[in-house]
Order: sequence, then structure tokens, then C-alpha cells
Amino acid sequence: MTARQEELIWKTLDGFEIEIPSWGFAQTGTRFGKFVQPGAAVTIEHKLSDAGQVHKLTGCCPTVAVHVLWDFPEGKDSAREVALLATNYGVRIGAINPNVFESQQYKYGSLGNPDPAIRQAALDHLLESVDIATEVGSRDVSLWFGDGSNYPGTANIRRRREWFEEGLRRVHDRLVQGERLLVEYKPFEPAFYHTDIADWGMTLLLARAAGPQAKVLVDTGHHYQAQNIEQIVAWLLQDEMLGGFHFNDRHYADDDLTIGSIHPYQVFRIFHEICYYRWETGAEPQIGYMIDQSHNLKPKIEETIQTATTAQELYAKAVLVDHESLAYHQEHCNLIDAEELLKAAFATDVRGVIAAWRRSRNLPENPLIAYRESGYQQQIDQERADANAGAVSSYA
Amino acid sequence: MTARQEELIWKTLDGFEIEIPSWGFAQTGTRFGKFVQPGAAVTIEHKLSDAGQVHKLTGCCPTVAVHVLWDFPEGKDSAREVALLATNYGVRIGAINPNVFESQQYKYGSLGNPDPAIRQAALDHLLESVDIATEVGSRDVSLWFGDGSNYPGTANIRRRREWFEEGLRRVHDRLVQGERLLVEYKPFEPAFYHTDIADWGMTLLLARAAGPQAKVLVDTGHHYQAQNIEQIVAWLLQDEMLGGFHFNDRHYADDDLTIGSIHPYQVFRIFHEICYYRWETGAEPQIGYMIDQSHNLKPKIEETIQTATTAQELYAKAVLVDHESLAYHQEHCNLIDAEELLKAAFATDVRGVIAAWRRSRNLPENPLIAYRESGYQQQIDQERADANAGAVSSYA
Amino acid sequence: MTARQEELIWKTLDGFEIEIPSWGFAQTGTRFGKFVQPGAAVTIEHKLSDAGQVHKLTGCCPTVAVHVLWDFPEGKDSAREVALLATNYGVRIGAINPNVFESQQYKYGSLGNPDPAIRQAALDHLLESVDIATEVGSRDVSLWFGDGSNYPGTANIRRRREWFEEGLRRVHDRLVQGERLLVEYKPFEPAFYHTDIADWGMTLLLARAAGPQAKVLVDTGHHYQAQNIEQIVAWLLQDEMLGGFHFNDRHYADDDLTIGSIHPYQVFRIFHEICYYRWETGAEPQIGYMIDQSHNLKPKIEETIQTATTAQELYAKAVLVDHESLAYHQEHCNLIDAEELLKAAFATDVRGVIAAWRRSRNLPENPLIAYRESGYQQQIDQERADANAGAVSSYA
Amino acid sequence: MTARQEELIWKTLDGFEIEIPSWGFAQTGTRFGKFVQPGAAVTIEHKLSDAGQVHKLTGCCPTVAVHVLWDFPEGKDSAREVALLATNYGVRIGAINPNVFESQQYKYGSLGNPDPAIRQAALDHLLESVDIATEVGSRDVSLWFGDGSNYPGTANIRRRREWFEEGLRRVHDRLVQGERLLVEYKPFEPAFYHTDIADWGMTLLLARAAGPQAKVLVDTGHHYQAQNIEQIVAWLLQDEMLGGFHFNDRHYADDDLTIGSIHPYQVFRIFHEICYYRWETGAEPQIGYMIDQSHNLKPKIEETIQTATTAQELYAKAVLVDHESLAYHQEHCNLIDAEELLKAAFATDVRGVIAAWRRSRNLPENPLIAYRESGYQQQIDQERADANAGAVSSYA
Repeated sequence: MTARQEELIWKTLDGFEIEIPSWGFAQTGTRFGKFVQPGAAVTIEHKLSDAGQVHKLTGCCPTVAVHVLWDFPEGKDSAREVALLATNYGVRIGAINPNVFESQQYKYGSLGNPDPAIRQAALDHLLESVDIATEVGSRDVSLWFGDGSNYPGTANIRRRREWFEEGLRRVHDRLVQGERLLVEYKPFEPAFYHTDIADWGMTLLLARAAGPQAKVLVDTGHHYQAQNIEQIVAWLLQDEMLGGFHFNDRHYADDDLTIGSIHPYQVFRIFHEICYYRWETGAEPQIGYMIDQSHNLKPKIEETIQTATTAQELYAKAVLVDHESLAYHQEHCNLIDAEELLKAAFATDVRGVIAAWRRSRNLPENPLIAYRESGYQQQIDQERADANAGAVSSYA
Repeated sequence: MTARQEELIWKTLDGFEIEIPSWGFAQTGTRFGKFVQPGAAVTIEHKLSDAGQVHKLTGCCPTVAVHVLWDFPEGKDSAREVALLATNYGVRIGAINPNVFESQQYKYGSLGNPDPAIRQAALDHLLESVDIATEVGSRDVSLWFGDGSNYPGTANIRRRREWFEEGLRRVHDRLVQGERLLVEYKPFEPAFYHTDIADWGMTLLLARAAGPQAKVLVDTGHHYQAQNIEQIVAWLLQDEMLGGFHFNDRHYADDDLTIGSIHPYQVFRIFHEICYYRWETGAEPQIGYMIDQSHNLKPKIEETIQTATTAQELYAKAVLVDHESLAYHQEHCNLIDAEELLKAAFATDVRGVIAAWRRSRNLPENPLIAYRESGYQQQIDQERADANAGAVSSYA
Repeated sequence: MTARQEELIWKTLDGFEIEIPSWGFAQTGTRFGKFVQPGAAVTIEHKLSDAGQVHKLTGCCPTVAVHVLWDFPEGKDSAREVALLATNYGVRIGAINPNVFESQQYKYGSLGNPDPAIRQAALDHLLESVDIATEVGSRDVSLWFGDGSNYPGTANIRRRREWFEEGLRRVHDRLVQGERLLVEYKPFEPAFYHTDIADWGMTLLLARAAGPQAKVLVDTGHHYQAQNIEQIVAWLLQDEMLGGFHFNDRHYADDDLTIGSIHPYQVFRIFHEICYYRWETGAEPQIGYMIDQSHNLKPKIEETIQTATTAQELYAKAVLVDHESLAYHQEHCNLIDAEELLKAAFATDVRGVIAAWRRSRNLPENPLIAYRESGYQQQIDQERADANAGAVSSYA
Repeated sequence: MTARQEELIWKTLDGFEIEIPSWGFAQTGTRFGKFVQPGAAVTIEHKLSDAGQVHKLTGCCPTVAVHVLWDFPEGKDSAREVALLATNYGVRIGAINPNVFESQQYKYGSLGNPDPAIRQAALDHLLESVDIATEVGSRDVSLWFGDGSNYPGTANIRRRREWFEEGLRRVHDRLVQGERLLVEYKPFEPAFYHTDIADWGMTLLLARAAGPQAKVLVDTGHHYQAQNIEQIVAWLLQDEMLGGFHFNDRHYADDDLTIGSIHPYQVFRIFHEICYYRWETGAEPQIGYMIDQSHNLKPKIEETIQTATTAQELYAKAVLVDHESLAYHQEHCNLIDAEELLKAAFATDVRGVIAAWRRSRNLPENPLIAYRESGYQQQIDQERADANAGAVSSYA
């Protein structure tokens, strides 16, 4: 690696932050049940404490995405307390995630529900979430809706869209300056016939209808098989509509696996499109790099550390692409030369230079090993065991 | 419709039974939670009572598939009692379904677990399930395994296969004459990188290794997108390895929707391959037609009735295919003529003749309406409301 | 069937036209070669003659989509002659389809090519195509682009989009009043890494950038596995951006099979969304129903007749849905009742009433049989045999 | 990299050979046409000459897979001459590939055709292909069949399977000692409803029915989206049924892109399963590593060189996995530790050590650059330009 490349990576790492989700430390599973981990986080304090560990060791996870329903027991009234708690553990509150999919009233939808009272309930929760963001100083309110239908004919697709437009507009109106509404899409699950916000095109239209502070959130697991995610990213960048990511990896559907565990070259290509856009345009888009994974089997804190370091590695590889040469070869249709520029960057082993950067920043060279040696896991396994004893669920 | 066709359908309906699952009456949902229905079955008695309603109104659901873990509180010791209970409600116990995926010990697998003690625990449960089948006089023990891994490198694929072969052989040894072991495959969920029994080919090899009473169970939702399920059915029939079905429909993954709700022509084609095989060979294969659906949103008993009547309709259409002409046109590569025979059968409206058959068998012409008029749902909604009050779950 | 339903179907059939493509009568195949049919159309006169046969027998195919490159040997100068020829055979020229994918110069793209001279050549062809449309009085110019790239890094995704916007705008400028530009999307093939116009969202943005007469064309085979096409149709209708369809069916990718041969219920649902939109809004959207299939193995004219009659049947079923009840049940989340309205319409056997309508319109009851009895096929098989003798291709 | 690792890679490279296909140097395209390259190979001599260039520069492509129909103008009578020609160009003849999909007679199938005369014609060609293999001393006869059907009902799936069993048995009978029959599967294309040999399970059953020298050939592009190919490889190895690979990469369907261009980690995982099997069992399975790609746009010889070097890199990474530790962590369900062993091997930059190995073997460090500097391409572009002038095809 050349000195220039090393410098580039150092600079990149200094500026690269990835937000981890509070729910990544809690018990999760599939519809067939959850496998309990004794040290899983039960309270918001647990989660922030765990996130603090990750940030302390990796230096790249200063913010924590939170879930209003699970993390703010008193809603807006908990906001200050939670923000303070975060500070105590060395992190800050990141994106605010409302929850309008779990309560029984949302059986037939939230903002897309035919019942105006339920739409209002959903709206109230969303508005409160904006208020929480304002209260704790978060930039982003991140919306995912499970709304949809399971059977042909059971839902009026167009009507529901109108309700969504109306609802999102009202949420947008509540934003203060500098805040953003991130809207997420997903083709299926939990709805299995139609999902009201199913793809990036629908999201872009809804976001534009909502207002200028609404952007699209790309969850890498929320695509059809074989869909070219980096092309979508390129289009959204071009339209200044890319708000951020929920990173995770998958083999099949929305598997919520560790980033880069299945398709690392794809993650690299996504990062590349961003870097290339910046190089070409000089623009510095505001992109929220966030993780949304379901740590069902791996130890949750270890997996989060693995996630953060993998993201750093793949991002560091992406900045190594020689953009000037790439532009030249693309312009001249030198297919192999252009492709080899990406392959060369991806083939470069960046682990050494990242380790060096860590040392220089007083971070452990290998955060995973450092974590294991810290004794933290043993401590929480013991402290939280009782609270986790009953945390099971059953398919039927 | 010709008189011969009507006769054919009547004869078909007299011989067509479809097994419904006890868990189809209980609360189910997705990993994002369950939407509670006040009348959902909580106990095995509830389930058998509900199944009895379905059979009383449709006349085609005399047996109920049961789940050892959920339906036999004392395991084998509950067997007689449960069988008796079934009789009281006008049904019989059908396939016995062990559960080796929900207990915490199965985090890393059951029969495929590297830990011999856990493999033994799974084996013990499977053997007990065979004993229950014997005790209650069920023909089939139906096995589905969630075993697999979420990340490359974390499991020894071949070792685990050997453990499965060994385990299945031992379960097979426990079968008495006339009993069968049905083995199910599934490409993913809850395992997201590799599933030990992922497709029909793996299942066939494992079933053969287990012994002659082991057959393959085809769950229609457990296939890759675009896979031709009826071809698999044709091959399994030819090898006398088709044990039965878990019917359900899907748009995306294992959505567990109502049969025929998305791809009715596909279900028809599956039935057609069976009818055609019988016509050509004169063989009468033992096929367990079973339902395995997740009635998350629709009222569970109504959906089960809808399921049974839809299955009857699609099966009745399939028997209308003119096999002799079909064989002729296939032999002569008359593509359009051959195809039109299937299309014609599928286009035929069989609802009238089925209604007539129902009248003649003292069944309500429209079982769904009859059910709604029966008052049963109002009754159980009231009786079971308390028991269902706390039946919620959370994603994280 | 009630008298009202019969009347509804008659009225529907009187108003339903489906456009057939000239290339549906020519030799087609896969990249592995073509299987030659002796009577396949070689010249535009052949194609129009064949189309005339289909329309004469079905009464619903008065227009023929044409392909500039293959059907207008002298480009614009052939326009009048071709239009006249159509009249002679009892049909009219329908959508004009430019071809900017076959010429060697389009190896790296047409409107998206980095070379401005090639972009200009593509633009010239497109503009000439508009002129042809104007000349022959066609409403629609229908654009499909094969543009894209096969390998990561080889194309500048955003730049190419800009070139597409610029090019489409200029084509749009050439339209006269009443003409429309239909833009088609496709996720892959012939490009295998990225396709410049890959999905409906990209198309909608490009069409809006081009101008108000540009609309989206939905080819049913151009979607990801499991994508909900009818939802896309509903959205496009709502935005008044649905220009028309290229109908075909598929099991896997863009298989270009006969409409309704694999997923007939899906086609029905697409028609339903259109009917429901009309019922709710009172609007009468201009939708070009067109066929785009690859008749590789079935006799081409017979398959086209099968296509037209299948489309009639599925459309006739769709108009039977009781919209008023549907709206009520959707509003009240009566899932099963709503769904059963669609299922009932689909289950209705409409073949008899369509036959009656045909008789009343002096059309043969069974167009396929009438065609076979006409002797036309034997005639063209003989007349065109020599011209087709060399019509082979090889994979490598 | 440790000295032991370097040594391991050197030893690996000394033993690693990858077979390239003669058709990789000829004009190919999609059903929409071919983009002509002036230097594309037209004759078998061109192809062998081109292959000789690749082997001279990479040292790992000593054999060339050939296609009977295209490369042996006189069938068996051309065998000796072709073999001699190969020697002249520094390569040897590899797998013999019959062609029973292109001739007009195979419209409705080859070995699966209802017409016994056509089945016999196909059989004759296959038997001649075995004779050619014997004549030129090739180990493998590699069979791919396009057989299948496009529409439900048009083919008797089970009958056709019987014809395949019968035919394959007879081909197997013709093999001499040491020869192998490799049977390939593919889910679709050119058949779009059902393909007679659609997946690995069907192939395994057919190969076993054919005889002990029949094995399964895995074409990496011939799988359903999301199918776990390395698991299939692991199973086939365990059953001693893995005959070899047709490597290529894809984003969507059977795109036939350059190996590792889309999912390099997947190729690595496939190699890993092979290495792990060897380490665990001590067995040395005979695996034919072959390339089957469609070089539509990239310069063909350059792409073949890129292919060979990419395969070397991914294989070299795979041998770096620490098997002993892996076995330990798999046994103890240390998920992250096990996974990190694969990730570490994949992250290692092996380009330097491969370059060193090349130097030591008197090969150019960078074969691609060496090829460009050789002047060979300019020469063939000139020499073959005329022969390639008319090499176009049209969709319709």
C-alpha cells in the first residue's frame, strides 16, 4: 500500500461513524422463537452501557439508534433521562425509531389503516417521536411501517397510499430545522401480499409528498433477490434523496445478518458509489450509516464489534478506488480496466493500516479480543441472567 | 359440465380428505409480533373443538395434525387422553409433529447439533413422538427441523448430515408396521446461511438412508422462488417417495398464506400431476394432504374452512383433465392442444357441483356462511378472551 | 351467471382490444438458437397478413405493434406503404417500436453510450420513429432500451442517467399532440450487472423528466421474482402515469410465455386494479394493452389467437368483481369477504358467455378451431418455407 | 503472510489447473443479438491458438473444453487432427461437450423427446462424443441438455425422465475405463416451464441410474436465486458424486459473467468446502475445474486471462483457512471465531505471492499486461476480421 493510500484510509477512518441500534443488544429471534442470551440487554440503560463498550473499543460508534416503544418507557417524558444516560455511557442518542407495528391496534395497518382513529393514534406516536428527537437533539426520525395486506383484494392500495401521504406530511410539518424524516421501504414481511411502502420508488414519491426534509432510507436487506442496490443508491444520491442506510446482510430475505458476512463485495460497491459521487460532484451528502441487524445467535456485543470493524474495512477498501482512472476508463468503455480498479481496491488487505490507525487513536488494535479480555460480558451475563430468564416466545 | 364430469367430481370429493393442523387455531404471527384473536385456541381441547367445527361443516377434515410440544402437555402420557378428546369432538388425531426447534438447547441445532447430549435429547423427543403416534394410531410422524447455520464457516455441513442420517435411522427403527416418517425440507428460516435439510434432493437421500418407511414431505412454501414444485412432485411419485404435503401459499418466502390465495393454478397443477400419475400407473400412492398455514390476520376457523373448500375446488378441477387426450397430445408434441386440456379443466366452474355434493351429504352448501350463522365464534370469543389476553410477543 | 353479469361481459368485450406485435409472427428463439417454423413471417406483409387472420377470427386485435428496424426497410419512407398494407389486411398500425439495441454500434449502449456520436445515432433513430408514428397515425411510440453494463465499475450510472434524460426529452419534443412516449423498464437482460432503466421508479422519474406525454410501460415479465405487479399498476394509475402493458407470462425471468399460462390469477388481479380504479374515480385512463411474447415453440398464429382469447377471458372475469361490496369490506377490514369477491369472480366460467358474444358479433365461437379449419397455416407453411430455410442461429 | 502460508499458496498454484472452453473465444451474445469482435475465433484452430496464449501466460490452463458440433467438423473423424492441433498450440483437449440442443430436430427435446427416432439421433451423437473422448484421451464427457417444456401439460415429466435414464445408461456403457460422464443441471433456459434435469438432486439420481462413472457437474450460474451452492458441493463431495464445475458468475439468472465478478466470497466458499473436505477426509477427489462463460462484451482472450487469474486468487485465499482451528470452533459452536477464520483468509491479499510464484515459474507477473504487450490481439483482429464480418444475429 502506498503512503498516499494509507493516509487516505486514516483520513477516512477519522471521519467514518456507524450508528448501532439499541435493539441489537436485546433478545431477538425469528417467529419460531428466541434463543435467550443471559447478558442480553433488558433496559435502555443496559443497551446504552453495551453500546458504550462498543464505542470505547472501536471509536466509530458514537451514536445509538433508539426505539421509542422499547427505550422510552414514558415516551417524550423519558427523553431527557435517556439522553443523559447515553452521555453517562459515552455515547449519544442517534436516530429516533417510532414503532407503529407492534400494538394490537395496528393489525390492519397504522398510517394506512382504514380506521381514522387508528391512523390518528399512529400519527400521535410519530409526532411524539419527532418531539423526542427535538428534545434529545437527534437529527433523524427513522420510519419503518409494517403496513400492508396478506391477501389480494383485502386492501385498497391507492386509498392507503393517500393516507400515508397525508400522515407523512403531518409528521414532516412537526420537524424543526435540521431534522430529517427517513422513510424506509421493504417488499414483504410482516405483510405478505402487498406492503404499502414496498420499494425505493414508492418511498421517493412519498418522501417528496411529505416535504423537503424527508429522505429515503435504504435497508440493504429490504430488496428483491438480485436487485442492484448500488444503482438505487446512485440514483438517490443524484436526486439528493438518500437519507441513510440500515446495513445488514442476507442470503435469502430480510435475514438481518452481520454486514458483509454474505456479500462483502456488494457492500464495498455501495460504499464505492458514494465515494465516486462525492469525488465527481464535490458534494458532501448527509448520509446516516446505521446498522439494523438481528443478533439471534452470535453474542450480541461481539457481533456489534464485528459489525463495526467490518464496516470500517469495507469502507476503507472503497476509498482506495482510483476515481480519476475509473472515470477515464468508463468514458472509453475499457471494461476490464475499469472493473480491475474496483477489484484491486477490494483485494487490498486493509487490516494492517486500520490496526495502525487504531493504535494511533488509543484504541485496541483488535477490538474483539480487547472486548473478550475486558470481563464485561461475564459481568453482564451474571447481572442480567435473572431478568432474561423468562424471555422466551413460542411460534404458536 | 357433463354428467360424467359431475360424477367424477362427486367420487373425488367422497375420497378427498385434507388434514388441518391444531396450531392453525392458535395465536401465530411474525417475528414482529402476534395480533391476538380473542377466540384463538389455547388448549388442545380448544383446538380439537375448533377442528370439529370445520369437519362438521366441510366433511373433508376428519383428522387433525398435532404438535407434541404444544398439544401433549405430558408427552406420551397425554396421548390417550388427547385421542379420546378428538373423538369427543368428531375428529381423529392425524400426523404427529415433534418439536426440536423451540427449546433453548436447540440454539445450534437438534439432530445436527455438535453436542451429543443435545442430539440425544432431540432423539428422545422424536422417539417419544413415534410412541405417541403408535399410541393414538397415527400413520405419520412428520419431521421438520430448523437446524442450520447463519454464517459461512460456522457449521460443518457434512458432519451435521452424518448426525442427521444416524438420528433419522434410529427414529425410523422405532416405527411400527404401517407407520411412516415424513421428512420436510426448507431452504431457509430460521437458519439464514445454510439449512441442514434444504431441498427435496437432500431429503430424499436422508429418507432413503433412514429406511423404507421414510418419505418426503413437500411444504409448498418451502421452495426457492420460481422452482417448479409440480415437477418435484412428479419425480417423488415416480420414486414412491412422496409422503405428503404441507399446503399453503406465498408470494415471497414461507408466507404460510391460505392455499390457492396467490397461485391457484400452481396448486391445480400439483394435483394434476398426482391424478395423472394415478391414471398412468394405476398406482394409489399414500399421500397425506395436510395444511400448514399461519392464520395471522384472518379469523382462524373461517380461514380453515376457506382452506378446505378451496382445496376441494382445486382438486375437483384437476380431476377434470382428460388424461387420455393429454397423453396423446404430449406424445405428439401438440403443445397447444395439451396445454388447453389443463386450461379447460381449470376454467371450469366447479362450485355448483360441489354445492350439490354437499347437499347430498347433508353438509351445508356454503360452509363459511353456515359457520358464521352457527354462533360458535361468538361463543369462543367470549369464553377464551381471558386466556388470550396476555398472548403477545415483541420483536426485541 | 346473472343477466347483469352477462351484459357486463358483453359490454366489456365490445370495448376490449389487445394489440399484437408484428415480431410475434417471426422466428424467435433463445441465445441457444431458434427453432424454425416454415410458415413464420419473414416480411412485414407476412406479419400483417397473419395479424389480419387473428383479428378476423377474434375481433379484438385491430392494431399491430411494429418494429422500425425490422418492419420499415426504408425507415420513414416505408411508413405510408406499411400503413396501407395493414389496411389491406384488415388491421391498423399500432405502437411504433424503435430498435436501438441490435446494431453493432450499441455494444456499450444507445442513449446511455459515453460516445456522443452514438447517442446521436440512437436519437436520430428515435426521432425518425416518432415521425413514422405521426405519418401512420399511431398514438404510441414504445421505447425499450437494452442499455446497461455487465460488470461493476464499468459504467457511470449517474452520467448515463443524465444522457437518458436529455435524450428522452428531445424525443418527447418531437411528439405531436395526442402522441405518447411509452418507456419500458427491465431489471436485466441483455445487461447483467446494471440496466439503465431497471424498474418502474426509474422509469417514472425519467418519463416525468421527458415531458407530460411520456408514460410508463409495464412489461409483466420485466420484474423481480415476487414483485407485486398489480401494486405498481395501482400506483401508476393513481399518478396518471400508466401508459400501457406488454403482456406475457413467465416462470423464471423474462420468459415471454403466453399470457396467463403460468399465473392467470395474477393477470386477473392486474385487470382488477384497473377496473377498480375506473369504478372509484370515474376516470377512463388511456391504457395500451399490448402483447410482447416470444413464440419459440408453439405455432405462432395459433399462439397469438390463444393469447387474445385468454386475455378476453381474464379481463371478463375481472369486470365481474363486485366493486361496491369490495369497497365496503376493504373499509371494514373484512378480509375474507373482500378476498372472496375476487375469488368468486375468478372462479366464474366465462367461456360460454364469450362464445355467445362471438356468435352475436359474427365471429367464430372458437377462433382457434376456426383458424385450423381455415387452411391458412398450410398455405403459408408452403409459401414461406423457402424464405425460412436458412433462418437459424447458433449460440457460439 | 507467514512463510508457511506462502509455501502453501505456491504448492496450491503448482497443482491448480482450470480448463477453459473453446467457445469462450467465439462470438456469443444474448437472444437480442451478438456484438461482433473482429478477433473472435471462428475455427477450432483459432480457438486452440487463443487458448495457447492464455496458457502460455498464466500457466494454469493446459486443457481446453471442446464442443463436438462446433469444433469437430467431421465428428469423430476430426478427433485426431484436433488433438494434434492442440498440441501444436501448447494445450491439450479437455472435456468433450456434445450438442443436442441446437439442431432443429431437438425442438421438443433430445434424449427426452417423445419421438424415438430423435432420441436415437441424440444418443448417436452422445456415443460419438464418447468415442471422440476416447480417441483424444479426454477424461470427461460433459453433458448439458436444454430439454424441457415451456407450458404446463405439454410434456410428460415422468416419461421423459425414463427416457433420460435409458439414454444416459447407454452413453455410460460406452465409456472406457477412467472416463467419466459429467451431467449438468439447470433450472431454466432455454426451457421456461420445466427443465428435465433441473437441479442437483435430479442429476444425482440420473447419474446413479446411469452408472458408477457418471458424476454431477455444478455450473455455478445454474441455480435458483439464494440457493446455497457450497452446501450442494459439500453434499456431492460426501457422496463422491462431484465431477466438476462450470464456473461463471451472475447477478440474476445464467448470466455467464466472469468468475468472481459479482460474488467473489461465494466462489471462495465453494473452494473452501473442497479444501476442508480434503483436509478432513484425506481424500483427493477428481474435480474438473472448468470455465463456462459468455464473453459478450469484454475482449475474449483478456477476459479469459482475467478469469484464470481470478480463480487462482480465490483458490489461494481458500487454502489459507486454518482447518484445525475451524474444526475446533465448529465443534464448540464458537460462531464468531469460526466465521472469522474464513473472513481472515478471504481478506488476505494474495496478489503479491502469486506474482512471486509466477516469476519463479517463468510466467509474466501480470499476464493481462503481458498479453496486451504481446501484439497477439492486433494480429488476430486483422487476420480474422473478414471471417467475422457477417457474424451477426437478430432477435426476430
